[in-house]
Amino acid sequence: MRARYRDPEVTSLRLRSPTIDLQLAHRSVRAFLDAPVSDDQLTSIIAAAQSASTSSNLQAWSVIAVRDDARRSRLADLAGGQEFVRCAPLILVWLADIGRATRLAAGRRSVLGASDYLETTILGFVDATLAAQNAVVAAESLGLGATFVGAFRNHPDQIAAELALPDQVFATFGLAVGSPDPTESAGIKPRLPQSVVVHHETYDAKRDAGVDDYDGRLRSYNEEHSRTAGWIDAVLARLADRQSLKGRDELRRHLGGQGLPSR
Amino acid sequence: MRARYRDPEVTSLRLRSPTIDLQLAHRSVRAFLDAPVSDDQLTSIIAAAQSASTSSNLQAWSVIAVRDDARRSRLADLAGGQEFVRCAPLILVWLADIGRATRLAAGRRSVLGASDYLETTILGFVDATLAAQNAVVAAESLGLGATFVGAFRNHPDQIAAELALPDQVFATFGLAVGSPDPTESAGIKPRLPQSVVVHHETYDAKRDAGVDDYDGRLRSYNEEHSRTAGWIDAVLARLADRQSLKGRDELRRHLGGQGLPSR
Repeated sequence: MRARYRDPEVTSLRLRSPTIDLQLAHRSVRAFLDAPVSDDQLTSIIAAAQSASTSSNLQAWSVIAVRDDARRSRLADLAGGQEFVRCAPLILVWLADIGRATRLAAGRRSVLGASDYLETTILGFVDATLAAQNAVVAAESLGLGATFVGAFRNHPDQIAAELALPDQVFATFGLAVGSPDPTESAGIKPRLPQSVVVHHETYDAKRDAGVDDYDGRLRSYNEEHSRTAGWIDAVLARLADRQSLKGRDELRRHLGGQGLPSR
Repeated sequence: MRARYRDPEVTSLRLRSPTIDLQLAHRSVRAFLDAPVSDDQLTSIIAAAQSASTSSNLQAWSVIAVRDDARRSRLADLAGGQEFVRCAPLILVWLADIGRATRLAAGRRSVLGASDYLETTILGFVDATLAAQNAVVAAESLGLGATFVGAFRNHPDQIAAELALPDQVFATFGLAVGSPDPTESAGIKPRLPQSVVVHHETYDAKRDAGVDDYDGRLRSYNEEHSRTAGWIDAVLARLADRQSLKGRDELRRHLGGQGLPSR
């Protein structure tokens, strides 16, 4: 709790469980040992992912396990050259998958009119995300590390071609999985105070007042990890304008081309 | 594993952990004892939620804890009259929250141009979903049950009014939390075989072939729980046309009105 909040007023949790302790210790591992993720590990991780909730049991997601060196290297290039994507033994690419349902319908000479709507696109993203987060927790419970790769959305056309994605299937994000290199200094990143993110009964924008203290705490953390910005500056830069999206402003056009017009 | 897949070829996992066992035992609890969720329980659940990954540490989500009887009853009505929403002691409403960043920018006389794009809307959904799934696992590790309420998206205007949501804040889904009523017969719902959802290196639509067997297994499960449809029929009905979205076809219009044009 101390590392997660860095807030002098935050004390230990009164109610804990081994699982919650594991969740609180999450960190983004970007350096891996040269050891594969075994088929047995993958089976356990996927079983946990499939045990997550899914909207109306539609299970509107799939996942691609990428282990091939050359493909991981190409994916790393498409993700802005992030080295940990190249070096992780396993990349799981989580797919919003409406295509499976549409293919089942086509086999029965039927058409799914609902696939045109933004709701359905987002349902696929939500289902894939629920599954992926369960996969992270399961992987960590087996001693593995896992870090998301959102940058696959920077080049959606090329990612779809690389992974041979059919209609109505979209790569929401990757997840690099492997055995953490113990010499890496990945830390537990402090988060906003609970008083900022938890509202009671209705939304209260005055809770923003707690952000300033957090900004200082994150700045301290970043300085310890050889980075400089506070939180507010980083947020404002990340969402400043179309250019700051690094190609992701093309998401809606790409989805339309994939048969998910999102209207 | 037997309950999760109901596949005679599936055996026990070779690699397990107490956390994975907990995840595999997930079920949607819709009957709760008449006991509150304590502040200590909520604090632990939120700490786990905040420990999930978040895109670029933007933390583009918030959550509203609803305990008030009258408000829960109104939310249940908006969610198609689902009784478990009325009866759960706590409803957590998970918000995609771009508004906080925009308000921080406004305080510095700045504007966030990226908030206009679908990528940013989806980033909020993904962040809220990562946090919510960690909350489910944490709640279950404390002996609580938790079930998602997607139907809040059926009436987005009324939900936003009920919860006083400001610009660029959207209620992605609810989560009913409470102590499970042990007399409820909620089962572990079987999922698609791993051979259908896991692809290797590239996407392979021939994996759909495993769906037919699953359809029969889910039909058996449903019959034991006094329901009748197989999986394929249910999927096709759920996504048949605009009407089958039950108001969620209005999502894009609503988001536009909330300052998230999603272009």
